[in-house]
Amino acid sequence: MHVDPSVVRLGLLGCGNVGAALVSVLAEQGEVIEARTGLRLEVARVAVRNLAKARPVELPEGVMTHDADGVVHDPDIDLVVELVGGIEPARSLVLDALKAGKPVVTANKELVANVGTELFAAAEGAGVDLLFEAAVGGAIPIVRPLRESLAGSRIRRITGIVNGTTNYILTRMSEEGATYADALAEAQSLGYAERDPTADVEGFDAGAKAAILATIAFGASVVAGDVSHEGISAVTPADIAFGHRLGYEIKLLAVAEQGDDGRIAVRVHPAMVPTAHPLASVRGSFNAVFIEGDVLGELMLYGRGAGGGPTASAVLGDVVVAAGNLRRGTYAGIGAMPRAVIRPVDEVRSAYYLHLEVLDRPGVLHAVAGVFAEHEVSIQSMEQEGLGDEARLIFITHEAAESAVQATLRSLRGLEAVDRVTNVVRVASG
Amino acid sequence: MHVDPSVVRLGLLGCGNVGAALVSVLAEQGEVIEARTGLRLEVARVAVRNLAKARPVELPEGVMTHDADGVVHDPDIDLVVELVGGIEPARSLVLDALKAGKPVVTANKELVANVGTELFAAAEGAGVDLLFEAAVGGAIPIVRPLRESLAGSRIRRITGIVNGTTNYILTRMSEEGATYADALAEAQSLGYAERDPTADVEGFDAGAKAAILATIAFGASVVAGDVSHEGISAVTPADIAFGHRLGYEIKLLAVAEQGDDGRIAVRVHPAMVPTAHPLASVRGSFNAVFIEGDVLGELMLYGRGAGGGPTASAVLGDVVVAAGNLRRGTYAGIGAMPRAVIRPVDEVRSAYYLHLEVLDRPGVLHAVAGVFAEHEVSIQSMEQEGLGDEARLIFITHEAAESAVQATLRSLRGLEAVDRVTNVVRVASG
Repeated sequence: MHVDPSVVRLGLLGCGNVGAALVSVLAEQGEVIEARTGLRLEVARVAVRNLAKARPVELPEGVMTHDADGVVHDPDIDLVVELVGGIEPARSLVLDALKAGKPVVTANKELVANVGTELFAAAEGAGVDLLFEAAVGGAIPIVRPLRESLAGSRIRRITGIVNGTTNYILTRMSEEGATYADALAEAQSLGYAERDPTADVEGFDAGAKAAILATIAFGASVVAGDVSHEGISAVTPADIAFGHRLGYEIKLLAVAEQGDDGRIAVRVHPAMVPTAHPLASVRGSFNAVFIEGDVLGELMLYGRGAGGGPTASAVLGDVVVAAGNLRRGTYAGIGAMPRAVIRPVDEVRSAYYLHLEVLDRPGVLHAVAGVFAEHEVSIQSMEQEGLGDEARLIFITHEAAESAVQATLRSLRGLEAVDRVTNVVRVASG
Repeated sequence: MHVDPSVVRLGLLGCGNVGAALVSVLAEQGEVIEARTGLRLEVARVAVRNLAKARPVELPEGVMTHDADGVVHDPDIDLVVELVGGIEPARSLVLDALKAGKPVVTANKELVANVGTELFAAAEGAGVDLLFEAAVGGAIPIVRPLRESLAGSRIRRITGIVNGTTNYILTRMSEEGATYADALAEAQSLGYAERDPTADVEGFDAGAKAAILATIAFGASVVAGDVSHEGISAVTPADIAFGHRLGYEIKLLAVAEQGDDGRIAVRVHPAMVPTAHPLASVRGSFNAVFIEGDVLGELMLYGRGAGGGPTASAVLGDVVVAAGNLRRGTYAGIGAMPRAVIRPVDEVRSAYYLHLEVLDRPGVLHAVAGVFAEHEVSIQSMEQEGLGDEARLIFITHEAAESAVQATLRSLRGLEAVDRVTNVVRVASG
């Protein structure tokens, strides 16, 4: 083992965009970090799947290896940075590193959202750090503020725009009137969206991040499977145009909230956000997390949610903290973490935007309004627009239980005069 | 001395709004904090100037005292929370506490902005924490993210709306067309502004916060006296209306930037902020800090910048961190801090909005444009509006050195055709 305590030797697992950015930032910023912290961070070994592949960074002879296990167990490696992604083999590698007493920094949201509790326990058992700032919101400091700065506040709700791909698509639809399909194709051609965009557009990526935010904010383990999902593929230019008329922008929101009974609801869905709300002006591929708490009031953290540089910036912040803690013989334990009690999505209350196409004849509005009344869903505002023989009805409801709104929709679809329910979008509370 | 290591006994100096909010949040949140951190935080002693004054919180018999020195030196007090404000006696009390090996949490911006370096050195010497998250931006986590999460990024510029009073006044002027005097009177009647509003409206409060932000972001000591100031009292409804027409909101900005030569410029002044910029939509008494860095890109932290609850929330976050560090025998040292090299304000470059009243006759625009050309200040856009025998000219310049713009203004005032230079406002870079 090496002996100079001011040197901290890093073992990287994975060297894609983020890894390459991390190596190059360390080369540029290493001296500043050393001047401020007294720590020299050295990229000692880098495990990659394919040694032959060209990399945008230069590393000394012998640093690259394809033996990830060897890096984790190398006694000369002080700290492991996991940038492999996915659950296995990342999970085993991280567990092995922690058991060997090495702090781990990871940017892997899937890993933390699915097996976080197991990893937190392993870190606690070994008395070392497991830090994952980069797993949510890229360069935006969110995880550490929730763990530290806001530790004294009771958090009520976190509402995030945590997926840059969908926010880019919705921004193009809102600002250019593009259709969903065109905006998605554009995002794909720019490399903002994958060829198979499911994980982004159906809300799985945002859901994993929501689970992590809920876990940290409420101190109870929420996993990706606890999150209810709805994606953006059904959002139409007409809905966005109606939203503008009524004073809203449509955003894909990740919402985590804890009620007075302690139960936690976590969901991802498109929502009408009032234009005066700070989240409404989060444009393009930017991310933001809006936090509501009893004492702190309202807080928003905004920035670059993805990309090699921003993610590497968050990873490096964690590395500096973990390396400092390691040398001081301490760590930031996440504490015992009970399993969260999840509130079923049926019980969650929200206001709704409903877009119906109905026959344009006397008595239709009366019949439709009767259905709302029957299910005790009260209406906040309504607009009607003629469409030849048909009419378009736009309703914004007051807050109502999900189950009541679903029952209303079933009854509306059963009305002869209702041609179709074109869209239903939740309205975020202002 | 008490012996239970899970109990951390707090000594509060001062018990105004923030102190009272802290005591009541601790009463509500104490159990949650204990469950998460294993630490029981106990308000053991509270020093106040006037024991007879009614307090909004109840404390056990014997906790209140008027002997602040006694609290600092009491061997049963583990951690000191300084909420006295001002420089003395706060400085002496904090130094004594640190020398006695007690971590200190303070919300005192004047103290940190004026004698921070001395305090940091004392904390480093004693090996204990000196934390001051609440000194800038109330509940918004800014200081800790700059120290920790962003430690790996080179920060180029920080632009903040860090004074809620002036932002409230400017928001009223922008949204209601109020005059400065009316908006100030309203802020005073609501308790947002002091009877003597100088510290807020002339930018001294924002300047102290800018000095602290610059110190932390650039790792070099900047004091309040290094900050150049310009307040908002000269902002008129006409400037705000022109701003709207040209796509800007006027905000009081605190700007700290470091050039490639390492020199640091820190200033507070009103500025035209492009409406699409995230800072433009920070309304009312909210605060926000916009950070630009090489790797992280753009980041904004937004929330409640003042008030008992939000400030207490930040203080409590610091208390939890400092108490945990104390029990683990560690601390978050701020490191050696050289004195900053300050860039003179003359050399700072900025775009400008200029509002002139001129005689409405042939050749005037030619003469005015000649003055700009002579001083090599180039014009980005111009608007002219008739005012009877006079005309109003509005210029937006490209970026130019402060000294060149000042020379331009002197020459313009010397032109016979120029009646007066009504206002000059910097334009923030988009």
